[in-house]
Amino acid sequence: MKYIAGIDGGGTKTRCLLGDTRGEVLGEGLGGPSNPVSAGMEEARCSLEEAFFQACTRARIPPEGTCLAVVAGLAGGSTQEVQQEVGKALREITGAEKVQVTTDLHIALEGGLPPGPGIIVIAGTGSSALGRDGAGHLARAGGHGPYLGDEGGGYWIVKTAVARILRERDRTGVPSPLELALEKGKQKDLSWPRFFAQAPPGEIAALAPLVLERAEKGDPWAGEILERAGKELARLARDVAARLFGAAPPAGLAVAPLGSILARFAGVRRAFQAALDAPPPFQILEPKADPARGALLLARKLALA
Amino acid sequence: MKYIAGIDGGGTKTRCLLGDTRGEVLGEGLGGPSNPVSAGMEEARCSLEEAFFQACTRARIPPEGTCLAVVAGLAGGSTQEVQQEVGKALREITGAEKVQVTTDLHIALEGGLPPGPGIIVIAGTGSSALGRDGAGHLARAGGHGPYLGDEGGGYWIVKTAVARILRERDRTGVPSPLELALEKGKQKDLSWPRFFAQAPPGEIAALAPLVLERAEKGDPWAGEILERAGKELARLARDVAARLFGAAPPAGLAVAPLGSILARFAGVRRAFQAALDAPPPFQILEPKADPARGALLLARKLALA
Repeated sequence: MKYIAGIDGGGTKTRCLLGDTRGEVLGEGLGGPSNPVSAGMEEARCSLEEAFFQACTRARIPPEGTCLAVVAGLAGGSTQEVQQEVGKALREITGAEKVQVTTDLHIALEGGLPPGPGIIVIAGTGSSALGRDGAGHLARAGGHGPYLGDEGGGYWIVKTAVARILRERDRTGVPSPLELALEKGKQKDLSWPRFFAQAPPGEIAALAPLVLERAEKGDPWAGEILERAGKELARLARDVAARLFGAAPPAGLAVAPLGSILARFAGVRRAFQAALDAPPPFQILEPKADPARGALLLARKLALA
Repeated sequence: MKYIAGIDGGGTKTRCLLGDTRGEVLGEGLGGPSNPVSAGMEEARCSLEEAFFQACTRARIPPEGTCLAVVAGLAGGSTQEVQQEVGKALREITGAEKVQVTTDLHIALEGGLPPGPGIIVIAGTGSSALGRDGAGHLARAGGHGPYLGDEGGGYWIVKTAVARILRERDRTGVPSPLELALEKGKQKDLSWPRFFAQAPPGEIAALAPLVLERAEKGDPWAGEILERAGKELARLARDVAARLFGAAPPAGLAVAPLGSILARFAGVRRAFQAALDAPPPFQILEPKADPARGALLLARKLALA
């Protein structure tokens, strides 16, 4: 039997979908982290193998089946070096001749939007946006990491809140209500500067729901920070549009919001929507399908090419 | 012979001054890093020993001389735990009974200002301010480290510039003149996000003179960033004044600017001055003496107490 594979590889888990050449899903498998930059090439390879073989078992694909094409979208998959190394590993694992390794953003765009021009904006721990024009050209904005960018993401929300409460404590000498709320989420013995110097970005971003909670209780600082987050995420979409279409992007351009911050933080979502309603207005679309499905769509194109 | 010792201990070097009880300097010694947080307690102890014994040799103080009092101001010296450990080490090294361990900011304040109320603002890699009211009470602002604060310091200047150029590249797709200037100072093979994730803050702050150079050539972004830096540093002084004197600090309060950024970056200094000229106006004083001298002044008070 002939089949294709689409893989979504992230910093904590890997998902593999197998499909037939019409794009119907045959089975799914899961593996560990496969971001080769953070997890290392060896662990990434193991996770890809795990996810692929589990999917084969579940899809009841026998060993003599032929994998026509594989597309993997990986966090950390933007450099040529990584793409070549992972590509080689995937050829060995799957036996496929046609293999393409791309970024997690690219497969999210394919999965999230209908064919044609459009932009996805992702806000999780970090933030970034990727868009496509009518000819299939891609442009990206953001994703500059926790120290230089990631505006509107979870890490940025927490960092902005803590910077604000420390400034206020400089002036008044007493902790603000927002500080007391955030203290609950922090390991007790670390000062804020030490916490930020030692904890990984994901652990810091995990405090973002405490900012949301304060905003929902009417805390004006927390509310302002979420509003700024939404505006910054809308800016990413406008930056991508400027790159793809110049000074006058078409009105009604599709924008799909992705990631936990845009999905669950109502204040962020509201400000994002308002900023994209301004002229020229964009059209917000709910994401059509998940990134692994996007990888499968790309694998189908690759198989038929 | 009876003498006293003042020590200025930083992340790269340690300076020890010996003096007589009138405060006259008898000799000086140098040692390695003695920030116990970054260098570790063992290395800090060695550096303190090195600086002290070198100063004794140069001051021709015989081993039977009596050290009456030691004051050490250390970077990383703000916690009780560090103060007790370093205090014990200094008693063993110097044989002094009266030993006080405090922060590098505290001795800088003692050295930098004449007696009475006043504030010092320091901007090097980081930034912070410390002030004293007429009764000797101290209040501090800033010093929250590279991820949450340090506004106006060298790291902040470079980080703000790089964040700005990355945003601009998102929008236009081409590097700005400021980016090309900063690229010269960066290790070649690292992207900006990786450089910021890997290089220590001091190495990043070392690029600040490239921002200064661009500002002097009329680059509007570089000029704006330096202006914001000066305003932020003035804000630190006003925050300290608010803590010490409440809503209405006395006009003409002395403020001494310290550190390389306030000394050498003309645009920063200008904006700092302008912000402190606003009502209520502060009076900018050139620092009277260096931090080691401040430690010696405190040691004299301790000996006479």
